[in-house]
Parts: sequence; C-alpha cells; structure tokens
Amino acid sequence: MACVTDESWVALPRMLSERLSLREEEAKEEEEPGFFDSESAAYRLEKVFPVYALGIQKPESESESDPVVVADSSDDPIWDAVREEAKLEAEKEPILSSFLYASILAHDCLEQALGFVLANRLQNPTLLATQLMDIFTNVMMHDRDIQRSARLDVQAFKERDPACLSYCSALLYLKGYLALQVYRVAHSLWSQGRKVLALALQSRVSEVFGVDIHPASKIGEGVLLDHGTGVVIGETAVIGNRVSLMQGVTLGGTGKEIGDRHPKIGEGALIGASATILGNIKIGRGAMIAACSLVLKDVPPHSMVAGIPAKVIGYVDEKDPSLTMKHDATKEFFENVAVKFRDARSAGGQTSEKSDGST
Amino acid sequence: MACVTDESWVALPRMLSERLSLREEEAKEEEEPGFFDSESAAYRLEKVFPVYALGIQKPESESESDPVVVADSSDDPIWDAVREEAKLEAEKEPILSSFLYASILAHDCLEQALGFVLANRLQNPTLLATQLMDIFTNVMMHDRDIQRSARLDVQAFKERDPACLSYCSALLYLKGYLALQVYRVAHSLWSQGRKVLALALQSRVSEVFGVDIHPASKIGEGVLLDHGTGVVIGETAVIGNRVSLMQGVTLGGTGKEIGDRHPKIGEGALIGASATILGNIKIGRGAMIAACSLVLKDVPPHSMVAGIPAKVIGYVDEKDPSLTMKHDATKEFFENVAVKFRDARSAGGQTSEKSDGST
Amino acid sequence: MACVTDESWVALPRMLSERLSLREEEAKEEEEPGFFDSESAAYRLEKVFPVYALGIQKPESESESDPVVVADSSDDPIWDAVREEAKLEAEKEPILSSFLYASILAHDCLEQALGFVLANRLQNPTLLATQLMDIFTNVMMHDRDIQRSARLDVQAFKERDPACLSYCSALLYLKGYLALQVYRVAHSLWSQGRKVLALALQSRVSEVFGVDIHPASKIGEGVLLDHGTGVVIGETAVIGNRVSLMQGVTLGGTGKEIGDRHPKIGEGALIGASATILGNIKIGRGAMIAACSLVLKDVPPHSMVAGIPAKVIGYVDEKDPSLTMKHDATKEFFENVAVKFRDARSAGGQTSEKSDGST
Repeated sequence: MACVTDESWVALPRMLSERLSLREEEAKEEEEPGFFDSESAAYRLEKVFPVYALGIQKPESESESDPVVVADSSDDPIWDAVREEAKLEAEKEPILSSFLYASILAHDCLEQALGFVLANRLQNPTLLATQLMDIFTNVMMHDRDIQRSARLDVQAFKERDPACLSYCSALLYLKGYLALQVYRVAHSLWSQGRKVLALALQSRVSEVFGVDIHPASKIGEGVLLDHGTGVVIGETAVIGNRVSLMQGVTLGGTGKEIGDRHPKIGEGALIGASATILGNIKIGRGAMIAACSLVLKDVPPHSMVAGIPAKVIGYVDEKDPSLTMKHDATKEFFENVAVKFRDARSAGGQTSEKSDGST
Repeated sequence: MACVTDESWVALPRMLSERLSLREEEAKEEEEPGFFDSESAAYRLEKVFPVYALGIQKPESESESDPVVVADSSDDPIWDAVREEAKLEAEKEPILSSFLYASILAHDCLEQALGFVLANRLQNPTLLATQLMDIFTNVMMHDRDIQRSARLDVQAFKERDPACLSYCSALLYLKGYLALQVYRVAHSLWSQGRKVLALALQSRVSEVFGVDIHPASKIGEGVLLDHGTGVVIGETAVIGNRVSLMQGVTLGGTGKEIGDRHPKIGEGALIGASATILGNIKIGRGAMIAACSLVLKDVPPHSMVAGIPAKVIGYVDEKDPSLTMKHDATKEFFENVAVKFRDARSAGGQTSEKSDGST
Repeated sequence: MACVTDESWVALPRMLSERLSLREEEAKEEEEPGFFDSESAAYRLEKVFPVYALGIQKPESESESDPVVVADSSDDPIWDAVREEAKLEAEKEPILSSFLYASILAHDCLEQALGFVLANRLQNPTLLATQLMDIFTNVMMHDRDIQRSARLDVQAFKERDPACLSYCSALLYLKGYLALQVYRVAHSLWSQGRKVLALALQSRVSEVFGVDIHPASKIGEGVLLDHGTGVVIGETAVIGNRVSLMQGVTLGGTGKEIGDRHPKIGEGALIGASATILGNIKIGRGAMIAACSLVLKDVPPHSMVAGIPAKVIGYVDEKDPSLTMKHDATKEFFENVAVKFRDARSAGGQTSEKSDGST
C-alpha cells in the first residue's frame, strides 16, 4: 500500500478539513498556551494526515455521546492493510499462523486486535490478560482520539522507519508503538481520575518494553518512538504532533518539587538517540536535537542543537525534521568546524588544542 | 502521611540514637577506609532516618541470633501506610482489588509482601514463583539490615520522586525500587557464599527490569534508583547512603583484570541520567554528576561536574544534592559561561569558536 | 578450565589451519569489500580461536549437505565444560538443581540446551516455548557457522568479562550472550527469506532483553555484548570478529531512505558504554570508541576517539583493544591535556575557559 505524500494534501477535500477543524480547536486548548499555537496556522493538521488514517472517523457531533464504535472494515484502510498483511504473513510463515490468527485475524477492528496484543504482552501472574484486555478495549472503543492516534502513529512508524516493512509488523513487533498505545489508554484513564490503574499500566510498560511514560504527560499524534529502550517521559512533559524520538531519550524533571517541571517538545521535532532534555524548557517546532545532547535551556524553532550542554549549531531547512530522520544533519556542521579550525591554524590563528583535535 | 523532616531529627530521643550507633559502627567497617569515614561525624545516621522507618527495629543484641521477625503492624508505620494505601486503592479501582489483595493485603508484613511481588515479577517457566518467594522471604525475614534498607529505600522514593504518590506504589510499580530489593537479597546470598543463586537473581533482574547490579557490589541505605532502565553497577562498586541514581547510569570497570575496578560513590551524591563513571575512582560525598557526563577521575566532595570528560564546574551548597534532585543545577553555570564569553567577545577578547556557540 | 592464549596459536597444527582456511574465505565474501580485507592477512582466524571451540567442527566438505550434527561430547570441550559447571552448581545450590537439569543436564549438546534456554526466555502466551524451541534447534542443528559462533561467543564472554565466572553462567544468565545467539538464528532465517519470523524473533529479544539487533545486520564471531541493555544495531550494520560492545551502544542509521545506512565496525574494536555511532561510516580495525562518544565520521584503524562529536585523541598499541577492555585508556590522554593546559596557562599562554576547567 503506497502512502499518500504530504504534497497531495494540499488538494484534500474540503469536507475532511471541516471534520478536522473542530478537533484541532479542541486540541489547542489543552496545549501549552502561546507555545504550540504560535505558528499553528502554517501546519494545518490535514496537510500531514493521509486520508485512510481517518477511515473510522465519524462526524464530530457523535463523539460527544461516546458510542461504541462498530468497526466497519470497509472504511478503515489501515485495518484493511493490517489484515491483508497478516494473511500474507500467515501463508508465508505457517509457524506463525496461529499467533497471527489470535493477534489479528480473529478480531473485528484495530482496537480489539491492539487490546489483545497489548494484554498478552503486559499480563503477568497477578494481572491477568483477560482483565487487561477488558481495560484496553473498553477505553479504546469509546475514545475517538485514541482510535485516530493509533492509526496516525502506526503510519508514522511505517513511513519514517525504513526497517518497518508493514503496518502489521509495527502493531505486532515494534515495542515503541505498543508502549505509546498503552500510554494513550493510561492517559485517558488518568484524565478520568483513575490514576491508580494508569500508574499500574505505566509500570508494566516500563518493565516489559523499557519505555517509561508518565500517564499525565501529553503526547500528540503521529509520533514515532523508534526502538524505544530507555525512553523516559516525565509527568508534565508535552510532545507535539509528528515528533520522532529515538531510543534512550529522557524528557526529565529537575528538583523534587511537584509542578510543571518537564520539557515541552514542539511539533515535528526530531530528538536523537540518548538525548537528555531536562526542566520546563521549550524545544521549538521542527527543531533537531542531535544524539547524545544534554539540553538545559530553550531551543529556537527549526534550529539544530548538539553537545553537552547543547548549543545551536545551525538551522533546519525542513518543516519537520522528524519526518526525514536525517540524524547526521549535524555531520556537515562538525566537518565545517573542523575545516575552519584547520584553515585558521595553518594561517597562524590561535585555536584551542581541543578544537584542533577535530581536524 | 507526612514525613518527618531532617531538622526534627536533631531532637531525636537518645534511645534511638543508641540503637543506631552500634549498627553505624558495623556499617563503617565495610566501607572504603578513609573515604566514607572522612566526614561521617557530620552525618549521624539518625539525622536523616525518620522514626517510623525503624518500627521493626529491635534491640541490637537480638540481631546476632537472627530470629525470624514476627511482624507486628503496630510498630511498623511503613507497613501500616502500605496497607492503608492498598485498601484505599482497592476501593477506588475494583479492577485491581484482587491484585492488591494478593500482593499486599494478604500478607502479614512488608517482607512477605515484597517476597510475593518480587517472585511474581521474576518467575519464568524454569524458575517458579514459589521457589523464588521462598528464597526472598527466607533471606528477608532473617536479615534486619535488609528490613531496614527496604523501609529507608521506599522512603527515599516517596520523598525524592515527585511522581511517586505513595509507599504502596513504589512497592508495586517502581522497578528501580524492586530491582534494589532483589539486589539486597542477592548481596546477602553472595556474602553467604551462595554465588550461583545470587548471579541467577542478578540475571533475572537485568532481564525483567533492565537494571544490572552485581550482587557483590555494596549499596548503602535510602538509595533512589529513579526509572532504573539501563543502570549497570559493577562487581566492586560501592554506593553510600542517600545516593540518588537516575536511569542509564553506568558504574563500570575498566580492563579485564579481576580486582577492585569500579567507582565508589560517596554519601548523598546525585548521579544524573546516562552518566557513565568508569574505574576505581572516588566520587566525593554530596557531589553532583550532571546528566550525560563521562567521569574518569576522582570528584571532590560537594563539587559539581559535567561534560565528556567531566570537569568541575562548581560546588553544591547542599549537604546531599541527592535529596533535592536539582538536576539543572548546572544550568546556571552554563549560562554564566555563555554570558562571560559573549562579554569577552564584545570586548575583543579571544575565545574559541566552540565556546562562542553557546551564547 | 584454562584458556589457550593467543601466543600458543602460532604453533597450531597445520590441519586445523587448513580446516579453517576455506571457511575464512567464505566469510570474506560477505564482508564489506576493501574494508575488513585490508589487513586480514595479519589476523589469521586460527590465531585467536582456542582449539576446544572447534570440537564440533567437521571437515568442510560435509557442511554443504547440512547434516544434522550428532553431538558427541567427547569432542566438544565447551559443552563438556558447561555440563561439568552445571553439575557442580546443582550440587552447591540444590534450589537451582531442577532449573539446571532442565536447562543444561537434560540435553545432549550445546545447541539443544541453548534452544531450550532461549525458548523459555522468549515465550509468551501467543508464542509457545515448544514452537520457539523447534525453530531454534532446527536452525542451530543444521548451521555449522552458528555452532561455531555460539562457542566462540561464549568464550569471548568468559575471557573478557571478569564478572563471568563460567561458560555455564554466560549461557544461563548473560542476556547479551543470549540476545546474540537469537540474532544468529534470526539472521539465518532472514537469509533464507523467512523475514517475518526473523522480525518476530528480533521483537521478542528487544522486549525480553532490551537488545534490538536487526536480523539483516552482519555480526562476526567471538563478539561480546556486555550487559546489553539498550543496544541497538541497525539493518545494514556490519560488526567484525572479536568486537566488544558495551551497554547502550547504538549503531544507527540516518535518514529514512532504504539502503546501506549503518556503521561498519572493524575486527577487534572496542565500543564503550552509551557510544552512538551513526551513518554508513567505517570504524577501523582495533579502534577504541570511548564511552558516551557520538561518532559521525570514519575512524582510522587502531585509533582512539572520544567526545561529542568524537575526535581522534590517540592510538591504541594493542591489536585488539576489545580483548583487554581497557575502557579508561582515554583517561591518560585527558589528564595529559589538562596538564598541558595548566602549564600553558602558567606560562602566560592563552587557553579557553572551558579547557582550564579540566585542570
């Protein structure tokens, strides 16, 4: 299944745009005031949401009564794709056919399949899979935001991770995706005041997937958690839409005070492997944080930062570096720096030993 | 349940002080000579140990005959708190009531509950939960040091991690706490010469929690392992009382020689996320290691170090930075450096390109 | 059991050398042309392969018909050692005797034992242990390369990790070793076109061990994955023989393009904890990457690099720094730099504030 590229969204049907506009307004209210809003007009959500991700979307008016969604595979292209892929895989690899049947093919919609997959990963002798499956499906079947996010996230994995060959494999095999979906359920439970259950789910995900996301944090849609191991996202962290986070990233707090103490990541930012971002600081939209950076202060939109502590080393041309995942964008900078220093040195300029080391 | 603050300990009953003094002397003998001792007079243990953590404490004379502790909830305020919290949570979230009953409410003391919780997390088809529970409770019911540490550790989590809402949640949901308690049992087994079993437990903890602590290492009381994922603590490492370690911290060795090859961390030190500390070096009491640092040489007491390799960038005013957890203490330093360089530059001073980048 | 040292291999029987030469040629074909080959004459494989690792080796001519290997403990000293160690451990620690019997003593050869151990670690309610054991043993019993690698790897752990006390403990307790063996099976399945199954195994290893190795990557023999947590090895990465990788190491890609986008690590290199190496770059043979480094460009053979971004800071005298594991080899350099700057400063030389900080 070919993916619709961003460009084609300029011509999206107006109807779709209308469907989304209300939700977009709602989403804004929850965001950090004056932060995510500043440039939001330039990033209409519909520009980056392929149409088939919206298959299960119903007119907004219905969503307030929170009906059980009766999944209809005819209008859910992601679920269609997952089922087709699972069928093909079961044919190619009979040893996995019962696993694929139980996980995917036995279910009527993406939410049920996800509930089954997640429950079986998180169960242990004291938290039964049946209990967990009830929790997951009860929340997911009544929450259109989660239904939409589950589809936009799976798309983010398929499009941005070249090692992700199918929607089905993200759903079954990528722990970053699974951890994110449990977070979405836990966040919904937390918002309903069911904090104890939300924390129990966070704990299981931290143990099973090595991904520790506080259920109170706010995470946008179309987010990629690549590999996932070691990721820590704190209680008051906020992550915008279309962000990509690599393994080992910490969005951490400082001090033991309760209160707003974690980073806010703007839309479309790319956070490199093992980057550590601490405190209630703002990473601007479309910023790129190089791998292994330690970020302790605000990062301007579309800037590229690197180092310990991280400093601005350039600017990103793309709107969303998270979508292209060019982690070595800093490479050219570092090479330029090296050349500059070498030239300066040949010309008799004074540079520090440390900088010379880079030539 | 409000926590007794450090200040109130100045007025602690003399009896309690006497109870502790013997144990304190014993503890010193095991410590690195001339390292942890140097300032110990200034850090009387009773100053930082709230009284209810000592509820299960009996006169020292008894501890040598290693009797089975008959838990009596009337003198164990931590266990009282855990039970009360579990009851409240079971009422609020009936879906978890059987889990809470089996994990907490069915047990007579903290040790039994811990044994049950740990056994169920670490069991697999070849290491049965019943076997593991026997191992844990047999060790914990006879080891007063572990009983005390289990309470002081749970307090460290509750007091220093603002996302930890109750003692009960640390016990049930925080893998850093659980990993540390298994280490305490494994260390006791190792000391008794049961190395094979100790290594089996280390292995299960590394797999289940992503926390790899060698059972021969020595870890003090009131220690916080926040998040825990990726932590590695080597065979000859020593960690003082009241230390806080964040996720991804390595206390590693160098070379393949057997012998004393791992770091010694002084009391009250705070080790930031993903810091890597290598070799038989001493991190002084109350030192602060910034996130992402690579530490290869001794760090003076109460100093603040950062960078690759880590350099001293300032000093910490607090006795125990581990207790306040201000991870961005380095922020001000880095900002000052930036301003200094900018000023120097405006004044025509020569600074390196790299430093300029920070303005 | 004493290990035969490298030196003794100069006098190896010619017969053994002949056995290996064909395999060595085959291995070369798969390697990055012009990279691993450049100095290969100086690193004849037989120089570093102790003889008992080859016990199960049969004349090359047989390997093409892929017969089931009938294990004969009389010519497999590694398996002999594992069994003897397991017997001793079962006597010393009766509580583990049924675990040791089921995992080791009930089996006829190393491959069956490994299959049982791996299946029990990776099983979950939807992937049964019996299915997994069939997959593992079917592949391992027919693949002499895996049989050889499994022995050379276990030797690497025993020889280079001073905390690894026996072959048996590597096999049962070291998740880095277990993750590597599952990778070897998954790589074989991937090469046979069974990509779906290979990805399913990758996923389970990432969840259970926190080690994420793409089955398409190419990894040599005698490799040590110490601790393992957080390691990520991408699809087109290549790792030479005798490499040692510490915990938290990323061999990552850049960009979302499909194609050759991951690092190539030369033989005998040592990659320190939390080092991040990105892009299709070459790390030369015998190079040493310091802990916490961010490597974005080629590293010359036998050089030592450190920092963010990593720069050459010296050269390694040893052929294979991976074998001695001296992680603080960079320490001396950093101290020298510090002294040099201090001296320069006393002499009135101009140095940057940042460098001064290191004195």
